[in-house]
Amino acid sequence: MKTKGVFDYFLLSLVFCFVFFQNSVHGRLLSISKPHPDNAAAFARWLVSQSSWGVLNTISSDLGGSPFGNVVSFSDGLPDDGRGIPYFYLTTLDPTASNALKDQRSSFTVSEYPIGTCGKTDPENPTCAKITLTGKLQLIDDNSDEAEFAQTALFTKHPEMKDWPMDHNFQFFKLEIEDIFMINWFGGPKPLTVDQYLHTKMNKLSIM
Amino acid sequence: MKTKGVFDYFLLSLVFCFVFFQNSVHGRLLSISKPHPDNAAAFARWLVSQSSWGVLNTISSDLGGSPFGNVVSFSDGLPDDGRGIPYFYLTTLDPTASNALKDQRSSFTVSEYPIGTCGKTDPENPTCAKITLTGKLQLIDDNSDEAEFAQTALFTKHPEMKDWPMDHNFQFFKLEIEDIFMINWFGGPKPLTVDQYLHTKMNKLSIM
Repeated sequence: MKTKGVFDYFLLSLVFCFVFFQNSVHGRLLSISKPHPDNAAAFARWLVSQSSWGVLNTISSDLGGSPFGNVVSFSDGLPDDGRGIPYFYLTTLDPTASNALKDQRSSFTVSEYPIGTCGKTDPENPTCAKITLTGKLQLIDDNSDEAEFAQTALFTKHPEMKDWPMDHNFQFFKLEIEDIFMINWFGGPKPLTVDQYLHTKMNKLSIM
Repeated sequence: MKTKGVFDYFLLSLVFCFVFFQNSVHGRLLSISKPHPDNAAAFARWLVSQSSWGVLNTISSDLGGSPFGNVVSFSDGLPDDGRGIPYFYLTTLDPTASNALKDQRSSFTVSEYPIGTCGKTDPENPTCAKITLTGKLQLIDDNSDEAEFAQTALFTKHPEMKDWPMDHNFQFFKLEIEDIFMINWFGGPKPLTVDQYLHTKMNKLSIM
């Protein structure tokens, strides 16, 4: 009886661990359920709002006009209250910001894989979603209301940003979205306009 | 005494879970220790060989010449025996492969973040490594030895690829690397030539 009790505790704690790690991403618990893949706009907004980083792509004049991807953190708003537009905190010490100041053409790519909701599916499998927002990477006027929104959005999701070195001259940028490419199931990219994406209402109770 | 025993079992199983999840990436155990950041070539090779996916960038003529990033799986060789050159399994149903057949200029970006070795560090913090390999995205001749190498490398790391639909005409591509941008600590990108990167010997016992 005593052995069984000990075994029950062991099982209980294993289950606890399993549930905790299944639903967390580096310590962050998902708080909005994944929308159904057919609801392209809500799914795209979920993918962007639940992600904390992606690859920001610019044209590199230093590398013969090659596309240059760079890992960056981002935020589209307060947690669980994203607006769909990705904001960034960049320094021209890094090629991405200096590329964008010469040529605004850009895209931003996010994978569902690091969120932890793809299960054992391969990252390139169409059921593990991916989104690429293409548009113009724009510097935000430091004294604008939008800069204030970007700061709150970014520093809330990425608390260490507020302590990044002043002399690196970090500035706020945003991607002005012109085209959306998203695959979140079989059958090719989902038709989705920028207007549909930006104006969908997120349903916090949507269930996959 | 009995309560203490049960508590010990509970603690033991928590420790087990913690150690297991700290060192695993979606069920994959890391088998090569992370090199010291000063050893740029070994670090870059470790980052590429331990990763399973990244963002592959091409120039999109359909989107006004914008850089177009796309989430893809890749492999640079058998597990723990990578050669540094990323191979891909792509279909021209997807924009990336068709872009590359028109304009080979490309880059491939990988973050250390999903490997799980950045701890609580922000994905944009320079101590959470990132690498961008820039070069030419090339289709591999289907009947070559290199295609055979690419197939073994990819299908070993991504077992589901061998069952992907025949009628999608997946083909093997590789990135012919011309430039390397890597940040893996404070102080800006690490100086690293393609020759140093490709010809470094991986030390399986290197310790961070």
